[in-house]
Amino acid sequence: MAIEIEHKYLVNLDIWKNIIPDKSVEIRQAYLQTDPEKTIRIRTKDKSGFITIKGKTVGASRLEFEYEIPIADANELINAFCSNLIEKTRHIVTHDSNIWEVDEFKGLNEGLIVAEIELTSEDEKYSIPNWLDKNVTDDPRYTNSNLTIKPFKAW
Amino acid sequence: MAIEIEHKYLVNLDIWKNIIPDKSVEIRQAYLQTDPEKTIRIRTKDKSGFITIKGKTVGASRLEFEYEIPIADANELINAFCSNLIEKTRHIVTHDSNIWEVDEFKGLNEGLIVAEIELTSEDEKYSIPNWLDKNVTDDPRYTNSNLTIKPFKAW
Repeated sequence: MAIEIEHKYLVNLDIWKNIIPDKSVEIRQAYLQTDPEKTIRIRTKDKSGFITIKGKTVGASRLEFEYEIPIADANELINAFCSNLIEKTRHIVTHDSNIWEVDEFKGLNEGLIVAEIELTSEDEKYSIPNWLDKNVTDDPRYTNSNLTIKPFKAW
Repeated sequence: MAIEIEHKYLVNLDIWKNIIPDKSVEIRQAYLQTDPEKTIRIRTKDKSGFITIKGKTVGASRLEFEYEIPIADANELINAFCSNLIEKTRHIVTHDSNIWEVDEFKGLNEGLIVAEIELTSEDEKYSIPNWLDKNVTDDPRYTNSNLTIKPFKAW
């Protein structure tokens, strides 16, 4: 179990297109459950599979439990039990010693790019790269679970 | 992933009380999700923890995915996300080379004892011990997920 604390920003597409990520991975994910109290997510990340249970977000924090599972199981779980799939490329970028995860969405969420930084406490200080725009940490439309229900292109 | 095929019987309490199990373990379990299409269960079994996703039962079969997780996580998941807890003692009994799991329920399901045999195919033959009564494989009231919603004592 961990407490996940993260801040989320929209990405300025014009500046972002000139940034070269440290690396990029392909992510597919879908939800066994999305309700206000908890989400249960199945994810594949390149050749690995994961099941993740997250609690309700309070401030920028939420309970998170994540377990690695065989990728064949992850694909079967997605196919057998989940209706809405999110596909995105996750770029990893280091800025001033901080690691940013920049998710470039595909499919029904194409056009949306968000960047997240994971913090060790809610008041941790960090520098904001110039390729970021608005802080959307508190906007529930940008959670991946909500993006499966109401995708970006349908806003 | 596995296909779980099992038959479930009520236990004749008078005859059962004279049976000595091979071993017995304490089980606590609760559900992150119970709907007709799938259940997501958190279980502790003595000192081990598990998360299990099961599909809809078709005949005597259902899809099952089970992963071991730290027992501390299992307890936290139960406390943080689950409202209804099932507690039972599971007795293991061998009869004619078949292994039977006999669940003796506690709390709101006290008085209920059911026995299950896991099969490798739906038409596998096996001998029925004399301490079994009615076959309740097809009776949805006896699923553990339904027993959390409508416990035996409330029938």
